[in-house]
Amino acid sequence: MAPDGTFFAYMRRFHAPDVQPGPYSLGPDEARHLAQVLRAQAGDSVELADGRGAVFPAEITSVGKRDVLLEVGLPACHPEPTPQLVLLVAPTKQTDRFEWFLEKACECGVTAIQPVWTARSERRVEKHDRWRRTLSEAMKQSRRAWLPTLHAATGLADALNHTADAYPNHWRGIAHCPVPEHPHWERQSMTDALPPQRDAVIAIGPEGDFTPDEIQAFEAAGFVPVTMGEHRLRTETAALFAVQAFHIVNALK
Amino acid sequence: MAPDGTFFAYMRRFHAPDVQPGPYSLGPDEARHLAQVLRAQAGDSVELADGRGAVFPAEITSVGKRDVLLEVGLPACHPEPTPQLVLLVAPTKQTDRFEWFLEKACECGVTAIQPVWTARSERRVEKHDRWRRTLSEAMKQSRRAWLPTLHAATGLADALNHTADAYPNHWRGIAHCPVPEHPHWERQSMTDALPPQRDAVIAIGPEGDFTPDEIQAFEAAGFVPVTMGEHRLRTETAALFAVQAFHIVNALK
Repeated sequence: MAPDGTFFAYMRRFHAPDVQPGPYSLGPDEARHLAQVLRAQAGDSVELADGRGAVFPAEITSVGKRDVLLEVGLPACHPEPTPQLVLLVAPTKQTDRFEWFLEKACECGVTAIQPVWTARSERRVEKHDRWRRTLSEAMKQSRRAWLPTLHAATGLADALNHTADAYPNHWRGIAHCPVPEHPHWERQSMTDALPPQRDAVIAIGPEGDFTPDEIQAFEAAGFVPVTMGEHRLRTETAALFAVQAFHIVNALK
Repeated sequence: MAPDGTFFAYMRRFHAPDVQPGPYSLGPDEARHLAQVLRAQAGDSVELADGRGAVFPAEITSVGKRDVLLEVGLPACHPEPTPQLVLLVAPTKQTDRFEWFLEKACECGVTAIQPVWTARSERRVEKHDRWRRTLSEAMKQSRRAWLPTLHAATGLADALNHTADAYPNHWRGIAHCPVPEHPHWERQSMTDALPPQRDAVIAIGPEGDFTPDEIQAFEAAGFVPVTMGEHRLRTETAALFAVQAFHIVNALK
């Protein structure tokens, strides 16, 4: 049983983006984890996920401290989950809150994340590799076959252009705090506004929210203003709420 | 504007369980925060929430490092949110994951939390005061008028007896991982099973899940087994998913 106590009923799964059937050598990070933390031995069976839907059965043939060799079988292929959910979200000032969100968003099911720097983004430190590792760990832990796409962080104008190019037919919604100029009762709730069984891009603002100019830019780009209710949610809470609402609306509507 | 950058559109709110109209002295923790972090001054207006629905307007009359005096007005009284949601949840091995859950559950709206030690609870350290402070901070931050009730951590038998006494008419659901003995497709999803506009108690297992005996004890106590889908969620993710599913189901059904 793994240290997190949750593996007993499952085959151990690892992330191997370039895996193919046949002999395969696991990368140093995964190899160290497998050998030193999970104490894997030759003959153990594991699963390798490429993060693009293919999950390969594999048997460990030899274990070294920095190198684990496996014999890989033919994969089971999982279609990409639909409808797609793309989140356009401002990284939080405290990076651990954003990393927490990335972990949970992957566990709960998100297609892509576009980090965006806004006028009120206080600390603009992109930790792309670390954030990607967080997503990879969450993909394995939640036993998903698809690794969410993590786009490079950009300013708002570039983010709007990029999502317009990459996701032209997605429904677009922007959630911002209830503020005196935009009280929540002027807007539909996200759960009412979300169209069922349709791909979506949802934008979530930073601490301090989007500026009125930024909200106008979103509306000009076809984003529907929605509310998550009268209570003020932290950025990462609102972003995860959007993920949950998207899936539950699609399950119920 | 407060350091978290979110206060600009709001009156600053503080938690004062024993506040009454008239002259009032803020406790040392809140006073230090108000004086040293927020740099409040005599003449500033704030709000004091008692955590039981009453929110009092107040004006600061004097500011010391350990003592802040206010003149408190008549409160606006908010009814307790309904339907009620009570979570019976096993604290995680890493306490920060459980504290993260407490913050988010309060932000998103939960009535009460019953921490429970289970057969697979690995580290049984109750941090009641710290957990309560986390809820208090989240109540203020999300501008809620009600502080969630944090029950004392107990074993499963006591927790089942206590919830049966305290919440006799609530719908009861237990979410556990899909395991070979209980595949997820044998059970209703939580979103399908949740009855709309009805108070509920929802139980979420520890890392490693409830044991088969524990699941039987829940079913004997009237808990309906539900699934959160085929993907494996961490304890704190599943617990927050239950909170958000409860509110979204009640908004949509």
